[in-house]
Amino acid sequence: MKAIADVCVVPIGVGVSVSEYVVACERIFRDAGLDPQLHAYGTNIEGEWDLIMNAIKRCHEQIHQMGAPRISTSIRIGTRTDREQTMRDKIESVRSKLGDDKN
Amino acid sequence: MKAIADVCVVPIGVGVSVSEYVVACERIFRDAGLDPQLHAYGTNIEGEWDLIMNAIKRCHEQIHQMGAPRISTSIRIGTRTDREQTMRDKIESVRSKLGDDKN
Amino acid sequence: MKAIADVCVVPIGVGVSVSEYVVACERIFRDAGLDPQLHAYGTNIEGEWDLIMNAIKRCHEQIHQMGAPRISTSIRIGTRTDREQTMRDKIESVRSKLGDDKN
Amino acid sequence: MKAIADVCVVPIGVGVSVSEYVVACERIFRDAGLDPQLHAYGTNIEGEWDLIMNAIKRCHEQIHQMGAPRISTSIRIGTRTDREQTMRDKIESVRSKLGDDKN
Repeated sequence: MKAIADVCVVPIGVGVSVSEYVVACERIFRDAGLDPQLHAYGTNIEGEWDLIMNAIKRCHEQIHQMGAPRISTSIRIGTRTDREQTMRDKIESVRSKLGDDKN
Repeated sequence: MKAIADVCVVPIGVGVSVSEYVVACERIFRDAGLDPQLHAYGTNIEGEWDLIMNAIKRCHEQIHQMGAPRISTSIRIGTRTDREQTMRDKIESVRSKLGDDKN
Repeated sequence: MKAIADVCVVPIGVGVSVSEYVVACERIFRDAGLDPQLHAYGTNIEGEWDLIMNAIKRCHEQIHQMGAPRISTSIRIGTRTDREQTMRDKIESVRSKLGDDKN
Repeated sequence: MKAIADVCVVPIGVGVSVSEYVVACERIFRDAGLDPQLHAYGTNIEGEWDLIMNAIKRCHEQIHQMGAPRISTSIRIGTRTDREQTMRDKIESVRSKLGDDKN
């Protein structure tokens, strides 16, 4: 089952900067072939459900190894059976309608 | 790796009532031994990471089979390495401090 | 506009225990008349949209005052126009269907 | 209090396509001066807490007017007192560290 997900990992108990942990996740997502798209409050990924969830699990394992004793992650994950849809499709379907505004 | 999660499944394209789908998930979580605790905006579960994620996947498969063409789920999932903690522990640690208010 | 919300506040940069901050939020929600219902991964509240959002803002202000330099909060918020529904109604509509299982 | 937020609005009971509702929100965010940055699973915005929450409220009002009887929205919202940080800063702090990979 294909899915599109949005992942925001928050390490707790390691100080205020979290970017090094986000970087570690980006690399894990990239190595897993999930085409990570970073945004200002998380990362979008797409692929098979199990690949996605295993990659997020590896993020937790990696961040714990880097020294964070506690992690709280929020995930949005979507699946659909009516048709195939990529992350790019989702953005395009909004942008094409928004495009009217520019005229 | 043990985890505590909070899951809110939203079927899209099937009308306004979602309770039958939530019921289906509760049964899946219960059968998986994840001790589901229903609340007003989701369900808390706890157990091994893979068991949790496989159960949520089965929820999506089941809800699609029930006729929902699209599902958007939001998940919070937490892990910690400093100590073991159950869902009950989390609630108790807040309630014990809140208890002061009653005196 | 009435709403039902689910709020999970995560203070960053203050150590691994977050229960004292959750307690502070519970008191703010209670004082605002939002009937907070604590669960293992957040708190459910209900009331007017503005009351809810102002209370969550006060949580952030209070937690910053308590010393947390950074906070990341995840919120689910639902509104409906087809009928009135309370947090209790939502839980009951699932529990009544789940009740069949016990027979 | 300045904040950075991530908003994902899910209309329920109106069919499988949600892009027209997302478009309506984008326009509301843009008109509110919140610099919306669309991604594949939501929209990032930044500005004063009250402006953000009022804009999301207007999204709900607008989507209900467009015919959706029920809406479930998930929001991440972050504030910090240690320093000012924009959405662009957050992305740059990750990208600069990721850049090493390209060499």
